[in-house]
Amino acid sequence: MVYSVLCAVIAILTVSMPSSHALWPMPKSLSTGSTPLKLTASQFKITTEFAETHGHSTNTPADLTQAIQRTTAHLQNDKMERLVVGGGAADKSAISSKQVKTINELSMSLVKGAVVRSIAEEAVLPLEQRNEAYELQVPADGSSATLTANTTLGLLRGLTTFEQLWYFVDGEVYTLEAPVEIADRPSYVYRGFMLDTARNFFPVSDIKRTLDAMSMAKLNTFHWHATDSQSFPLQVPGFTEVSAKGAYSASMVFTPDDVQDIVTYAGERGIDVLVEIDTPGHTMIIHESHPEHVACAQASPWSNFANEPPAGQLRLASPATANFTASLLHAAAHLFPSPFFSTGGDELNANCYDQDAETQQILNSTGQTLEQALSGFVGATHTALRSVGKTPVVWEEMVLDHDIELENDTVVMVWISSQNAAAVAEKNFRLVHGPSDYFYLDCGAGEWLGVDPTGNSWCDPFKTWSKSYTFDPMANISDANAHLVLGGEQLLWTEQSSPSNLDSIVWPRAASSAEIFWTGATLPDGSPRNVGTALPRLHDLRYRMVQRGIQAIALQPHFCAIRPEECDVNA
Amino acid sequence: MVYSVLCAVIAILTVSMPSSHALWPMPKSLSTGSTPLKLTASQFKITTEFAETHGHSTNTPADLTQAIQRTTAHLQNDKMERLVVGGGAADKSAISSKQVKTINELSMSLVKGAVVRSIAEEAVLPLEQRNEAYELQVPADGSSATLTANTTLGLLRGLTTFEQLWYFVDGEVYTLEAPVEIADRPSYVYRGFMLDTARNFFPVSDIKRTLDAMSMAKLNTFHWHATDSQSFPLQVPGFTEVSAKGAYSASMVFTPDDVQDIVTYAGERGIDVLVEIDTPGHTMIIHESHPEHVACAQASPWSNFANEPPAGQLRLASPATANFTASLLHAAAHLFPSPFFSTGGDELNANCYDQDAETQQILNSTGQTLEQALSGFVGATHTALRSVGKTPVVWEEMVLDHDIELENDTVVMVWISSQNAAAVAEKNFRLVHGPSDYFYLDCGAGEWLGVDPTGNSWCDPFKTWSKSYTFDPMANISDANAHLVLGGEQLLWTEQSSPSNLDSIVWPRAASSAEIFWTGATLPDGSPRNVGTALPRLHDLRYRMVQRGIQAIALQPHFCAIRPEECDVNA
Repeated sequence: MVYSVLCAVIAILTVSMPSSHALWPMPKSLSTGSTPLKLTASQFKITTEFAETHGHSTNTPADLTQAIQRTTAHLQNDKMERLVVGGGAADKSAISSKQVKTINELSMSLVKGAVVRSIAEEAVLPLEQRNEAYELQVPADGSSATLTANTTLGLLRGLTTFEQLWYFVDGEVYTLEAPVEIADRPSYVYRGFMLDTARNFFPVSDIKRTLDAMSMAKLNTFHWHATDSQSFPLQVPGFTEVSAKGAYSASMVFTPDDVQDIVTYAGERGIDVLVEIDTPGHTMIIHESHPEHVACAQASPWSNFANEPPAGQLRLASPATANFTASLLHAAAHLFPSPFFSTGGDELNANCYDQDAETQQILNSTGQTLEQALSGFVGATHTALRSVGKTPVVWEEMVLDHDIELENDTVVMVWISSQNAAAVAEKNFRLVHGPSDYFYLDCGAGEWLGVDPTGNSWCDPFKTWSKSYTFDPMANISDANAHLVLGGEQLLWTEQSSPSNLDSIVWPRAASSAEIFWTGATLPDGSPRNVGTALPRLHDLRYRMVQRGIQAIALQPHFCAIRPEECDVNA
Repeated sequence: MVYSVLCAVIAILTVSMPSSHALWPMPKSLSTGSTPLKLTASQFKITTEFAETHGHSTNTPADLTQAIQRTTAHLQNDKMERLVVGGGAADKSAISSKQVKTINELSMSLVKGAVVRSIAEEAVLPLEQRNEAYELQVPADGSSATLTANTTLGLLRGLTTFEQLWYFVDGEVYTLEAPVEIADRPSYVYRGFMLDTARNFFPVSDIKRTLDAMSMAKLNTFHWHATDSQSFPLQVPGFTEVSAKGAYSASMVFTPDDVQDIVTYAGERGIDVLVEIDTPGHTMIIHESHPEHVACAQASPWSNFANEPPAGQLRLASPATANFTASLLHAAAHLFPSPFFSTGGDELNANCYDQDAETQQILNSTGQTLEQALSGFVGATHTALRSVGKTPVVWEEMVLDHDIELENDTVVMVWISSQNAAAVAEKNFRLVHGPSDYFYLDCGAGEWLGVDPTGNSWCDPFKTWSKSYTFDPMANISDANAHLVLGGEQLLWTEQSSPSNLDSIVWPRAASSAEIFWTGATLPDGSPRNVGTALPRLHDLRYRMVQRGIQAIALQPHFCAIRPEECDVNA
């Protein structure tokens, strides 16, 4: 009796402790052991049982096969040393014992009756149909690991977790924590990252690398703020004059082929591409091709007409402009398989329209207020998008600062302050958290406007990963409204960013919210998610990103990364 | 009479206006015209007259020949478009006229009687002998450009300026501003950049790329903070155990060959490598190989013993430790041709020694105070360095916070506050400005210590290029002490930096002080140096860096970079 109780205690200590430093985001349920296990990357096989069952390989979607190939390559190439003093050399004796087993296979299967779709198809299903859950078992005895899911998308997530289990030293790929048992699913359906490709341009290759990094953290939505007042790089069929005159150069354009390339690459990685063409503000550059549609273009001083230079907004009261915009968005929508499309709607400047003779003439002649005209304008764009099956997404001002008609399935992005989420929810809109006080990756880089040497970033200070990590998606949200919170995203506005610092300003920080919205408030052992235990795991993700060519920033001196807690503020 | 006055006015307007957007740092004297001039990069020749004069090519030092080859390559490969709307396409008509001349040669010569030394030799001469002056004339009529200087180092600086004169569009290399006449020399003899390779490690390739960028801005001193408490990557002959046990890994070491590689590369680019082995603080990691020499190693809580983790300082009162340190520095000094060597000396923590039984025993037995022991320790290291011809460099605390004997040729680096420079000068020490309130490139990235999610960077906010640019080297310095100001440097401490963000956190910001200390307070037209006219030129430098593979950050949206002043705060 005493013996068996003791054994149970030992079992708890050695098998159930979720001690893995590698996993990000932390799975919902995890148990790990303390048995070393090796993997011979060159011989390791990842098999799909459901394909064999049905007897023909076409049942394995091509993008799942590619995902398997990527995982196989990562197991060979990551060469990720354990973040401990000595760099894993201390593990060599543990894994060189003849008793250490070698695992040769990961067997993947879909649950019985599952519909086999490609990962890309799963990634763009309506939110309520998306399923990223998976279960993963890695036995300690060298027998095959198993990965099961309802969807290929779930299998992709499981493969991503599997990759994070393994370390490398002196040619050996190994874990010290077999057996591993994981049952996992995301807490929130929307886990995003936003990139602004208009202030500064980013080539397709940079976006693809960003999608790779997103997928490592199981982020599932690439919110692509494609256009703004500074440039219009998106080439929209039927409206090519807009990018021809509005892109920074002929080479700084996303052609439909580029978009398809990005959308495909994202889909293969379980990522939905939510494009945004911000309207009616943030549109000055359309003046270059369509001066008739833009009020206060480059008006001076810009601060009277816009939150940043250059001023310029679509003439929302003009039926011709509304028609043009709706047609533009309608045409752009065909480029993207996502069920969503963002029409933006932030930072509308009323003075721009007050000073615009044409707008005033239309308002006077129709007897409309500016708000009524805005309602009509937004309605026209949303109707156009709905006609091609898109659910509109807007920035928070559209529901908090304006009195316009919006259908209640519209998704609202909260950005000005985390405090504003509750008000959006109270209006019964679904929302995505992107608060500048937690999630803006550009904050803290100082003033970028010219001739202001003592100016600071408007959203100073810098949002560290740990500041972001303390965000509570349910703060001030009533239980009744909890279902309205779809998730959240970290965002990069690119006034001071370009391909030069894309990786370093985004990673690993943007993975901070990835864990908030995947893991939720509680770790597998029941303790609250916290920055103390998160840091060693985030270091791991960061070093693995670097191994894969993503230039993620160092969060601390390497000295600290290999000595958890020794560099804590009160250590 | 009226005609000739008019002509004179026109001449002033078209020839003397220093309108070039490209030059950084701005030369001391500059006149540019408005005549287009082309250069056929593949046929352009850079010749050295002084070699021909003496009749044998050995008179052209190998590193000058290499500099010429680099300039030739840059002229071909920079492909730098002019930062204007349309990207230089508007210049095509101006340069396609048949009247536009093509320049075929840059003829370089040393002034009569000049001693011919290599660039690398010139770069490490005693400060008072260094000469970086040059004169450059680029005629508008297609005749040869001429570059003259007293030294090969001056010729290198002139070549660097010459490279910045040229833009590219559609296969044509051109300027719109011929003729160009420049007479140039630096205002300050020390123009540096400091990199910490101890908090995080940087491979040789990253340091070389940094030296390339430094040379583009005519920076002449690479202050290499090689070691610290976190790691000791510098392999010192005779003391290889220190790096063997103190480097992060066997591959994160600078061998003597690596050092030679760096020193050679720097010298070829006119850069002196001022190495720092910080002592007696910031030395915990020496405990790994020499526990006998280190007090309070990794003592907890670290904040009682050090300004950041880990705690650990050399036992300065111990004769054995002083001897060890002096010998270590003496051995390291042989690796570097610089006339300087920094012994550091910042942030000494008295409590570490108060709590160290061995230190207390020595102090008690010798009847010394800690300050007296410190004076002896520093004296021992400085004597060792002087014995091999090095002038010691120290951080400001050594003269402002401690009462120790220091010879008055010691160079003092001011870092805690720009306010402290005057006090150092009052003590009659030569000084280098590196104030954290202007020049610390790491500031503003948030707290890096663990478990402090609301913590900010200790030196918040981020130091923008324009904040740095407003630094006045002579503020509070009396005229009588002006000669003590050697120059200044921007610095990167690497708690939150690694190769991933090296370029983007350093460039183009570190070029800000390069202009302060080269150009001085006044622009060639007599107006004060100012952030308004600097920004377009700094954009130019930044874009040219990107063309050369240096991942310099975008300072503004590209929209603003091609529209000077339109994004100014009050535009």
